[in-house]
Amino acid sequence: MFRLSCVTAAVLLCALVPAAAQTPASSGPVDPVAIEELVVANRILADRGIIDAYGHASMRHPGNPNRYLMARAIAPALVTAEDIMEFDLDSNPVDRRGRSLFVERFIHGEIYRVRPDVNGVVHTHSMGVIPFGISQVPLKPVIHTASYLHVGVPVWEIREAAGVTNMLVNNAALGKSLALTLGNKPVALMRGHGNVVVGPNVRFAVARAVFTDENARMQAVALAFGGPLNYISPEEGAKRDSEPSDPARAWDLWKAQALKKLPAN
Amino acid sequence: MFRLSCVTAAVLLCALVPAAAQTPASSGPVDPVAIEELVVANRILADRGIIDAYGHASMRHPGNPNRYLMARAIAPALVTAEDIMEFDLDSNPVDRRGRSLFVERFIHGEIYRVRPDVNGVVHTHSMGVIPFGISQVPLKPVIHTASYLHVGVPVWEIREAAGVTNMLVNNAALGKSLALTLGNKPVALMRGHGNVVVGPNVRFAVARAVFTDENARMQAVALAFGGPLNYISPEEGAKRDSEPSDPARAWDLWKAQALKKLPAN
Amino acid sequence: MFRLSCVTAAVLLCALVPAAAQTPASSGPVDPVAIEELVVANRILADRGIIDAYGHASMRHPGNPNRYLMARAIAPALVTAEDIMEFDLDSNPVDRRGRSLFVERFIHGEIYRVRPDVNGVVHTHSMGVIPFGISQVPLKPVIHTASYLHVGVPVWEIREAAGVTNMLVNNAALGKSLALTLGNKPVALMRGHGNVVVGPNVRFAVARAVFTDENARMQAVALAFGGPLNYISPEEGAKRDSEPSDPARAWDLWKAQALKKLPAN
Amino acid sequence: MFRLSCVTAAVLLCALVPAAAQTPASSGPVDPVAIEELVVANRILADRGIIDAYGHASMRHPGNPNRYLMARAIAPALVTAEDIMEFDLDSNPVDRRGRSLFVERFIHGEIYRVRPDVNGVVHTHSMGVIPFGISQVPLKPVIHTASYLHVGVPVWEIREAAGVTNMLVNNAALGKSLALTLGNKPVALMRGHGNVVVGPNVRFAVARAVFTDENARMQAVALAFGGPLNYISPEEGAKRDSEPSDPARAWDLWKAQALKKLPAN
Repeated sequence: MFRLSCVTAAVLLCALVPAAAQTPASSGPVDPVAIEELVVANRILADRGIIDAYGHASMRHPGNPNRYLMARAIAPALVTAEDIMEFDLDSNPVDRRGRSLFVERFIHGEIYRVRPDVNGVVHTHSMGVIPFGISQVPLKPVIHTASYLHVGVPVWEIREAAGVTNMLVNNAALGKSLALTLGNKPVALMRGHGNVVVGPNVRFAVARAVFTDENARMQAVALAFGGPLNYISPEEGAKRDSEPSDPARAWDLWKAQALKKLPAN
Repeated sequence: MFRLSCVTAAVLLCALVPAAAQTPASSGPVDPVAIEELVVANRILADRGIIDAYGHASMRHPGNPNRYLMARAIAPALVTAEDIMEFDLDSNPVDRRGRSLFVERFIHGEIYRVRPDVNGVVHTHSMGVIPFGISQVPLKPVIHTASYLHVGVPVWEIREAAGVTNMLVNNAALGKSLALTLGNKPVALMRGHGNVVVGPNVRFAVARAVFTDENARMQAVALAFGGPLNYISPEEGAKRDSEPSDPARAWDLWKAQALKKLPAN
Repeated sequence: MFRLSCVTAAVLLCALVPAAAQTPASSGPVDPVAIEELVVANRILADRGIIDAYGHASMRHPGNPNRYLMARAIAPALVTAEDIMEFDLDSNPVDRRGRSLFVERFIHGEIYRVRPDVNGVVHTHSMGVIPFGISQVPLKPVIHTASYLHVGVPVWEIREAAGVTNMLVNNAALGKSLALTLGNKPVALMRGHGNVVVGPNVRFAVARAVFTDENARMQAVALAFGGPLNYISPEEGAKRDSEPSDPARAWDLWKAQALKKLPAN
Repeated sequence: MFRLSCVTAAVLLCALVPAAAQTPASSGPVDPVAIEELVVANRILADRGIIDAYGHASMRHPGNPNRYLMARAIAPALVTAEDIMEFDLDSNPVDRRGRSLFVERFIHGEIYRVRPDVNGVVHTHSMGVIPFGISQVPLKPVIHTASYLHVGVPVWEIREAAGVTNMLVNNAALGKSLALTLGNKPVALMRGHGNVVVGPNVRFAVARAVFTDENARMQAVALAFGGPLNYISPEEGAKRDSEPSDPARAWDLWKAQALKKLPAN
């Protein structure tokens, strides 16, 4: 049922909304603090090995919920404020100026469209999670810093959405399909590809991308021991969900590390 | 039985000793050398990947056994002398000045209270130990530098202490419960969370945190081989306990590395 | 059959074409941009841990398909433009000037001879791939960035080519044998030794060397889970082959990292 | 039988040759080039993670085969030329000047005594090899750079030599026992402790310490695959032994890396 409706949606989209490829209006200047936050998010994801050349981070436009901000097509380690662009939720750029765009930007637009609670989205190929995306062993929380995984981590199978593809989420229909698999959860794995991680702001999304990868690596070690594992329980996870802690301590550290601004000796 | 008494203790504490939240008297100025030692301990734990954003190190106050020293709530890599604060064994700060405190500082206060032999405490989420805290496979010494593990490494199950929690040791009752599980041992694992490591001084505690993580990683590899493993025996461990070596050689190296003061080429 | 013809070829080569050891004519000066590209390829392979002391990268001469360019015998991290030499397809240097040569340069010459589609060759000992070269478990694509592995990854067994050897591809016959095993594929593993990776240009070859190693490491983790794995399918791989993406985004990042030219903070 | 003779030897040594503790005569000044070689060996072992705080490298005195050179008790990363001392084969220092000595220096003296072919000795706790020292799974060569392991890697069990100990090779009898287990081989594992690696010069010993650790890590991965592994054969290893290559290419790279003298961009 899911497969059918998804494909149908794509066809209708192409047929009825060619205007989506037109240039949307700008939402006006963005607070430089927000831009800086997104640049730092990119640098942190690179510095911590969560994103290498491919993958991207975005934030919902602070002044317009129907827009999001993301870099032009460039590796996160190289992103500066000048690279940040504005997109509408169809993932059309406001002011392209000939720049290359991430072909998978639809991941971001389609999630922002259906998840009003989400203001930050990260897509990674982080090496810890790939094995879980191709296995039948579910990714589950082994440490409280990743307790948000207690709700389950769905695996998006692009073959179910569109058959044989080049594996990329390079159109709106695929973005919608991934967003549907993600549902109301914080993380979805993408089979043979990576994951998508969301949060109420870009800091949360970044922290979850980091902790999800660490959790996956530690769970893989524990699985090799062979016996039953004592995961964070759904009740514990739910309690932590209701008592969210701001990831400022991690952010401040990771930012200082990524920007090479640790204290002098 | 343990569970009941623990919860009762917490209730009584809250009901009868509200004064505990009052500001304790200062024990006077602390030798800057001791402060520096604790700052270096923090930096080493960060530099070696034992503590990332979360986790902390403390030392017992050199002039007052009823006080301990620990940083304000900040990642260890960022700690400087100005961040070090004095706490009483109820984990109340002597001079808060509006600073944020580690919500898990009770780990430290409650261990210092019941372990007069301990003058250094480290709490980590080090990735090597997490798998052992959620498995039924015991952590055991595979290398002589971690021979102190021969006494056994208890796993603290917070569910047995307090049912469903947010996994944090954020009150005295939980700290007492953890200290009870630790008993007279050097290390206790915390299920789904990390570990606590103690020593006769902060250098020992730091070195044990490092070597415990390394031991765990190597044991995990060896366990995958499948056959019986030839661990450091209790007799060997006991002999090494009775012939303790000062960890100065490691400390000097790790300090030079953490402070980027290796010799010029 | 393969074994016999290979050995025969070597004997004939030595007996009949001693002139092959003579100095071939130079193809004239090489565009410095191409030289720089090859130097950067070397540095990237070193910076990312794909080649340590041993291993090498080459490119086909941009002006003469019967020549290739490769460094004198030196670790890739140390290569500069002055180290790049020109070789004919018999792997004789055009202008030796007393410099040491890679004894395994025949890997490159013999592949360029039979693979007109190949303009970049990399030989590595990368640690991720070694386990697959000595096991009966095939290396298969677990992530789309390594989808080119869908055609299969042959394992070259030097024993079948030449019996007991010192494991090095140190003559043309062994180079031919390896090239034969590689066939029309992008990667071949070399048992107990490493791999050879080719591409339409040196950027592709470098990127494939990186992604093949990452794929191997992730597949090893997933294999330990024990159940069936959901690999990139041949159809998906073929579709990606027909829609090749230029690895410029990775190259630009890796070059900036290798040359320590990341953006200022 | 071995156990008895070994202990007896130690007793006799103490009883009959107290003069061994006296200060031996100096062999005269050492070529600064040799001193520098040993300093670089130390730095390389540290830079590559083969020795952290504990472990040591030595070379036989270039002018007197009954002496060896080794640093005072200090972590290898911190060694400079001023730290290098001369020892006789009883491991007595020629000119102590109050400096601390490695308590395990007997490893070196006793191996130089019985292995005239050896001019370089390295003792490490490298993390790759520890699992093999406590398992019944033999360490075997999976890559040609470690083909010297084809002769077998004996595991020294200190319990067989001396019962319950503090695990340290802190006297001549234990050093002799370890040397006896090593026999004429290049590497011996020390159960629950590390390994000892020897070579015809300190460069070979260092390279073997590096490659042995890498081999162990890769073999551990391959073992987890579960099937038979295709190791470097004894014949291949013997052929490589008879065609030794000078490890200069690795040495030059590792030295440049350890001393932070890589080429400018």
